[in-house]
Amino acid sequence: MVLRRLPAFAATAAGALCGTIAMCEQDPGLSRARVTGSSEVGATRWLRLTTLDYEDARGKPRKWDMAQRTTRKEGAEVDGVAILALLRRRAAPQEEVEMLLVRQFRPPMGAVTIELPAGLVDPGESPEAAALRELKEETGYTGSSACVSGQLAMSPGLTDEAVALVVVEVDLDSPANRVPEQALDESEFIRVNRVPVKALLPTLRELERDGCVPFTGLYTLAVGLQLGASGLADASAALST
Amino acid sequence: MVLRRLPAFAATAAGALCGTIAMCEQDPGLSRARVTGSSEVGATRWLRLTTLDYEDARGKPRKWDMAQRTTRKEGAEVDGVAILALLRRRAAPQEEVEMLLVRQFRPPMGAVTIELPAGLVDPGESPEAAALRELKEETGYTGSSACVSGQLAMSPGLTDEAVALVVVEVDLDSPANRVPEQALDESEFIRVNRVPVKALLPTLRELERDGCVPFTGLYTLAVGLQLGASGLADASAALST
Repeated sequence: MVLRRLPAFAATAAGALCGTIAMCEQDPGLSRARVTGSSEVGATRWLRLTTLDYEDARGKPRKWDMAQRTTRKEGAEVDGVAILALLRRRAAPQEEVEMLLVRQFRPPMGAVTIELPAGLVDPGESPEAAALRELKEETGYTGSSACVSGQLAMSPGLTDEAVALVVVEVDLDSPANRVPEQALDESEFIRVNRVPVKALLPTLRELERDGCVPFTGLYTLAVGLQLGASGLADASAALST
Repeated sequence: MVLRRLPAFAATAAGALCGTIAMCEQDPGLSRARVTGSSEVGATRWLRLTTLDYEDARGKPRKWDMAQRTTRKEGAEVDGVAILALLRRRAAPQEEVEMLLVRQFRPPMGAVTIELPAGLVDPGESPEAAALRELKEETGYTGSSACVSGQLAMSPGLTDEAVALVVVEVDLDSPANRVPEQALDESEFIRVNRVPVKALLPTLRELERDGCVPFTGLYTLAVGLQLGASGLADASAALST
């Protein structure tokens, strides 16, 4: 039953990429590795601790410990979604583009984190639908999906947890966004922040100074935005905001 | 002993941010929430499954399940590092900047992933030192740290796993980088790819078509690079590579 959740062990060595990527000649036979079995060590309502049996790239049997969410829906490729919500006024495209961030106390971190809006996918729900629903619940804003990723690994050495990144366009001129209201569960305490996209990295650093811990994927997004806007000429200068 | 690893439950509500961030008036008292205890459900050599007791923002006692690495060093703020290695020839700054990616079979994902080079921090080691050591071991390249983040949460709803992002400048003209050679453990099979930074998102999409699963933090970096370079005018167009 555990193995059902694992993706197919397809031939994933990307030999076709040698045109664009250097060092492809070093093929350690990645695609021959595969999971062969698993045993449960412990489980709670939400998480399961499992030891996997696998064969490495040379066919040698090995073991690997992992944590799994128990909540992924049958046939679903991802556990949840992370949402990059871009806010702009359609009527005033020259105005600065903003994005939505959420802050909340996260018991596993023992700290308040700063994250992209995110949430688990309901049964039968598409990532796009989950993203629009979660965005409305967590932040009060309504938008339309502009772009959705495939399966992304949250921490591939530790867990099979996977998300899709959904980019959502939010039109601030829409009547639905005039007075955004959260619709949280009674166990949720989520603070919403609107920040200019161009100021993401300095904003995260300001929040860090206040004790907030950024989500890795949000921080790397900020680094990408900063490097991309700088033209890559001088990374140290671009990142020393 | 488990609680020792949790960061201090400092007053993290960032009231000071109201100047730059909207919606600060919605303060659900995030900083009052705190972890009060924990009990171990199961453990292996590498991972521990724990149920936390915590008090929410209104002081109500609740429970939260989490997974922890058992390997974090006493006093260490992070478990590991992720490395953004920027490759350029100091003597030819007009040439395209490249970066290093690693592909490997990840048993928890049951698939070959594409990630930033990464690894666990050794006892007493700084994130910068760990990054330079891991980069050399995993990819063969030698560089110098240009920038290091604070603590970043890998999957804050699931685990306390935290990393630092280290940006490393690699000078391709350095004699040490003439013939880069990996120094892997006998259980590691890691393929190194050099890709132009500007082509990161289309490269990831090409790898996905071949069955590779990107690490979330790498994918959001790619989205940031693409949006940052586009000036944010039209996200759909910028991301439809």
